Amino acid sequence: MLVQDSALARWEERRPSRPRIDVGILGATGAVGQQFVALLAGHPWFRLASLAASERSAGKTYGELPWRLPSALPQEAAGLKVGPLKAGAGPQLVFSALDSSIAGEAEQEYAAAGHWVVSNSRNHRMDPLVPLLIPEVNAEHLQLLPLQKEKKGWRGAIVTDPNCSTIVLAIALAALRQFELKRVLVTTLQALSGAGYPGVASLDATANVIPHIDGEEAKVENETQKILGRFNLGAVEPHPVKISATTTRVPVVNGHTESVSIELGQNVAHHEMLSAFRDFSGPPQELALPSAPRKPVVYLDQPDRPQPRLDAERDGGMSIHVGRLRSCPVLGYKFILLGHNTIRGAAGAAILNAELMVANGLLD
Amino acid sequence: MLVQDSALARWEERRPSRPRIDVGILGATGAVGQQFVALLAGHPWFRLASLAASERSAGKTYGELPWRLPSALPQEAAGLKVGPLKAGAGPQLVFSALDSSIAGEAEQEYAAAGHWVVSNSRNHRMDPLVPLLIPEVNAEHLQLLPLQKEKKGWRGAIVTDPNCSTIVLAIALAALRQFELKRVLVTTLQALSGAGYPGVASLDATANVIPHIDGEEAKVENETQKILGRFNLGAVEPHPVKISATTTRVPVVNGHTESVSIELGQNVAHHEMLSAFRDFSGPPQELALPSAPRKPVVYLDQPDRPQPRLDAERDGGMSIHVGRLRSCPVLGYKFILLGHNTIRGAAGAAILNAELMVANGLLD
Amino acid sequence: MLVQDSALARWEERRPSRPRIDVGILGATGAVGQQFVALLAGHPWFRLASLAASERSAGKTYGELPWRLPSALPQEAAGLKVGPLKAGAGPQLVFSALDSSIAGEAEQEYAAAGHWVVSNSRNHRMDPLVPLLIPEVNAEHLQLLPLQKEKKGWRGAIVTDPNCSTIVLAIALAALRQFELKRVLVTTLQALSGAGYPGVASLDATANVIPHIDGEEAKVENETQKILGRFNLGAVEPHPVKISATTTRVPVVNGHTESVSIELGQNVAHHEMLSAFRDFSGPPQELALPSAPRKPVVYLDQPDRPQPRLDAERDGGMSIHVGRLRSCPVLGYKFILLGHNTIRGAAGAAILNAELMVANGLLD
Amino acid sequence: MLVQDSALARWEERRPSRPRIDVGILGATGAVGQQFVALLAGHPWFRLASLAASERSAGKTYGELPWRLPSALPQEAAGLKVGPLKAGAGPQLVFSALDSSIAGEAEQEYAAAGHWVVSNSRNHRMDPLVPLLIPEVNAEHLQLLPLQKEKKGWRGAIVTDPNCSTIVLAIALAALRQFELKRVLVTTLQALSGAGYPGVASLDATANVIPHIDGEEAKVENETQKILGRFNLGAVEPHPVKISATTTRVPVVNGHTESVSIELGQNVAHHEMLSAFRDFSGPPQELALPSAPRKPVVYLDQPDRPQPRLDAERDGGMSIHVGRLRSCPVLGYKFILLGHNTIRGAAGAAILNAELMVANGLLD
Repeated sequence: MLVQDSALARWEERRPSRPRIDVGILGATGAVGQQFVALLAGHPWFRLASLAASERSAGKTYGELPWRLPSALPQEAAGLKVGPLKAGAGPQLVFSALDSSIAGEAEQEYAAAGHWVVSNSRNHRMDPLVPLLIPEVNAEHLQLLPLQKEKKGWRGAIVTDPNCSTIVLAIALAALRQFELKRVLVTTLQALSGAGYPGVASLDATANVIPHIDGEEAKVENETQKILGRFNLGAVEPHPVKISATTTRVPVVNGHTESVSIELGQNVAHHEMLSAFRDFSGPPQELALPSAPRKPVVYLDQPDRPQPRLDAERDGGMSIHVGRLRSCPVLGYKFILLGHNTIRGAAGAAILNAELMVANGLLD
Repeated sequence: MLVQDSALARWEERRPSRPRIDVGILGATGAVGQQFVALLAGHPWFRLASLAASERSAGKTYGELPWRLPSALPQEAAGLKVGPLKAGAGPQLVFSALDSSIAGEAEQEYAAAGHWVVSNSRNHRMDPLVPLLIPEVNAEHLQLLPLQKEKKGWRGAIVTDPNCSTIVLAIALAALRQFELKRVLVTTLQALSGAGYPGVASLDATANVIPHIDGEEAKVENETQKILGRFNLGAVEPHPVKISATTTRVPVVNGHTESVSIELGQNVAHHEMLSAFRDFSGPPQELALPSAPRKPVVYLDQPDRPQPRLDAERDGGMSIHVGRLRSCPVLGYKFILLGHNTIRGAAGAAILNAELMVANGLLD
Repeated sequence: MLVQDSALARWEERRPSRPRIDVGILGATGAVGQQFVALLAGHPWFRLASLAASERSAGKTYGELPWRLPSALPQEAAGLKVGPLKAGAGPQLVFSALDSSIAGEAEQEYAAAGHWVVSNSRNHRMDPLVPLLIPEVNAEHLQLLPLQKEKKGWRGAIVTDPNCSTIVLAIALAALRQFELKRVLVTTLQALSGAGYPGVASLDATANVIPHIDGEEAKVENETQKILGRFNLGAVEPHPVKISATTTRVPVVNGHTESVSIELGQNVAHHEMLSAFRDFSGPPQELALPSAPRKPVVYLDQPDRPQPRLDAERDGGMSIHVGRLRSCPVLGYKFILLGHNTIRGAAGAAILNAELMVANGLLD
Repeated sequence: MLVQDSALARWEERRPSRPRIDVGILGATGAVGQQFVALLAGHPWFRLASLAASERSAGKTYGELPWRLPSALPQEAAGLKVGPLKAGAGPQLVFSALDSSIAGEAEQEYAAAGHWVVSNSRNHRMDPLVPLLIPEVNAEHLQLLPLQKEKKGWRGAIVTDPNCSTIVLAIALAALRQFELKRVLVTTLQALSGAGYPGVASLDATANVIPHIDGEEAKVENETQKILGRFNLGAVEPHPVKISATTTRVPVVNGHTESVSIELGQNVAHHEMLSAFRDFSGPPQELALPSAPRKPVVYLDQPDRPQPRLDAERDGGMSIHVGRLRSCPVLGYKFILLGHNTIRGAAGAAILNAELMVANGLLD
């Protein structure tokens, strides 16, 4: 485990006297960018200091642009001027919510110029030198960073978080890793906010199911293996679990629901598996990171839960919810998952990643 | 095969001179009852002659009761008086859309009194003497009827159609039966109309997923094995395929979507499986039954289809739609299904059952 | 009245021997363009011969482009090649569903080059020389056409239909015109399909009301006065009725609902007003035009009707539905309206306009 | 004005040393009952001590019953046993969310037995001796209470809050009262939660508008006149403003939207009316009552706001939001309103009423 008690102790020692760390957002005006702004408001460690976006928005203050979240636009962001992308300038720590059409190159430039890029974009996720990080699951993958800097010749580095439907699945699977994961079949029912803004046309979404999300199934299948993989001899070995995903879009605002069946290498009793979910914990909980949920996995006993409209926002949207654990006649076990796709599945995930990096002294 | 060319020939011969057959509906005022009324309007073989419902509605004309379908209330139904349930009176052929709380006993009484009860209720589906009929799939199960009458001591008989999500799956599996079905994993995204009226509360349904439908998963798992079973020595042997179902409710009006993965006993090429879907056909098509779709299974090539709002109503709602056939890393093959739950999955299914019975001379 | 018995008689005489008239669609790939294609399939008078669209789609066959209506893509359209806009070529009669960003200039060019442009776009609606036509309401406005051709120096002409929410209101008001319309207050609850495709983002539409539609309120207020105006001395005098509109968007697929209060110059009994709605009729009904609804206005007695999901598609979507007529403590009378916005409010309206023009011999 | 500085001063003096006041909820298991529980959790003045409900739920603990709000069930309520209705026992101050089928009699019995009944039910709203209270609007109506007790011969009393769509309108009109209200025309677009649970069937609500809510229009028209009325010589004189309401149901979860046109007795400039909205304030703000919003009326400048999904929950759901103020060609002025129907329009309204009563020393 990379995060050690001594690291925590050191952090605790210096926290009182330490000022908040300036951070920037790349791609601040999109759906995930707005979620970053909302979550960074009043953050105890980070101070939102810089907002960058495409040329079209650049030059306006953030308060002049349309704000589409139900929460109020944070005052500390409203007055910031939205600037263009400019690697090398501004805060060292930047969160990227850039569109994948430009994220690949832009994030590289920022990393080369010395920034720590904590990205939600898909472009670098499968790069063998880039951690695909979920702090509760694979904190040790941060050990890729020195290798990344060295091999890429960058002064900074890139850390990514997984696709929104992947992250929900990967956390649940991590809780069951001890039982030897063999095969996983998942069908997702994904919320509209996962497609960004404007995203899905209302004529497609209303009272309908769209049984296809471009490129999403491969992401779930491939990213999960990397996330659950072991860091060994300077590289991440993908986990051998076989995964099959079907991804669909349903008319829900926030919260991806997933129907999961799994095959394990061991026989596990119902109560053991329940305990594995309920007791699951990791470095964010040990370190009491500001965005860490008290429990990464919450098991709901009611037979008709979790439900996106009722449960996704619980615990600040950072827990994933599990329900309906029961035996599967085909693979052995099945259950329902739910996670908030723009918080735990995007902006909140990246912020938790950055908090872990800070707590490990990586940004010192 | 029970249905033979000679049967068809005989039917064709006598059709011109034969008057329409009087039929009744038990449970005429609910959601499925209304769908029966809509589908029987102008039916070439059947004449709606009698409507029965619970005490509360009895005594009014059908036109005085609330009509909740987008199509206009058929004139031939509007003037009919809604009577109480009364076995032994009225048309010999009755369609049952009774609530399961009363269907069990009421349908038995009707059958005992000499009616042919073509039922959409779940009560008698798993009775070993009652056909769980899909005309394209298991027409030979009608051979249970003489045994049923004899063993039950009834002058009439009961024929059932499957649960709405089962029927969609069973038709698709029947098209693939030739490839040796081993294991099936299905997650359903079911429409609101499947829960009847008033059914699901709008506060539960709106912008939400309900990951549980009471008793539904067992129905899909058990009914499918019976439907695909072989009639042998006077009984139906359940098919040995293993099935695991997760059933969910989504905010869609009509059309159940299903995400299916299957394991087969043989290696099947993509184009072979496509052909199996596209060429699938059965007695309703051979006999050109009035409610038979031209093709029971329609394969859609577009990557984001089938979709309930766009495809469920096609072909009068009697075809099932398949799309996204691709390989499954876990079980071998996966695809998306869609069927209209109150037409192919309920009222239309029962009417097709009755048509098959008529064409086989069972009602003579 | 422009349409006269003799005109009808002449039409009837020549119909049998006459071939279908070739028509084209400008802007064939958008939401209204697709509705034109759907409604023209199998039209008894018109034969779809030409499809034009923006450069991006041009060159493909129509069947290769995404089709977003629940009805099947008509075979007669699937094989047509989509061409670029090209005034002077192709059928003389063209329907325009062009985006307003280009419709203004393009339609002028077509009219100048000799085409009859029957347009659904807003650009020329308020031009004093262009009829803003609803055949049941103001057929005599077609008398503007000779003046239009002369003053514009065009070999062809432009005829427009009103905005989708205007047309629903204007038909209802026309039925009450005899009672001296003084003041009208309307709040609309408009369907998503009115905004075209992709139109409203699903994140804005889902479980929400958007209380603003850009430019829509002025359209309702101004167009209605022109539609109800009298043709006099070579010009249309706007009707003096005062109209105030609030237009909102609600998560409905098809069908604009309108809450209307009116002040009349006379006292009108409830039954008189009901009769005025129910007996309303016009040239399309007299001439039995192919797209004419049997009754332009259908009054529904049930207290909770009309409803868009249940009533908008009735009668082929060409009738408007009225309900809840009752007294208004402020203006005198109030009621609810509903009309299908892409059929009666757009493509169907334009086709009915063209049918009226044909029946009047304008295209000879 | 009943609430005086001295009252406030006295309250401030005794607050520190004073324990929280025990309160009960009648009808604790319904939609509004659950909202009461959620809002009373952690309330600085009130301590939830008793839950009563219909016989069916009585005997269980509250935590055993289904909880349908997205927020977590408050721990302080989970362990409370749900008892039957029992006037004379339990806390003196009770909030009533009883169904109107039983609220009439039950609330009378509680008042007669000495309870202060702060009710959200409609039964006693129009009783001339019962205040129909909005603390910002008509605090002086509390002067009815001594008369009520005397004439009814009750030891306690009943105070009501208005219907959910009325309260939104009445607060906005109160802000404009100074300009002489003459006539008001309102069309509401009401959320599903206003109908309670299970309330509206999802098959009626999905992708639809229901243009009728039973009894609702009369409530808006009559209650508003009483609320805005003047307390004079021991009675409330209804305000002479004429009101016409059309009430509709739309597929929104929370938040009633209202399209309002008004006629005033004076000419008012746009900026004056904006100021009237923005500066509106009342006793809850002066007294800094715990549930008082900082501003009862929030004006939003963006052209497409307020929207229920984005704005209803702001400020704890206790503010009403106004937007789109513009001139109305028929009545003079028009604007859009939005308020949270189960908070400001129901449970929150009743709690604010109770706070005002406490602050005025009525419960001492």
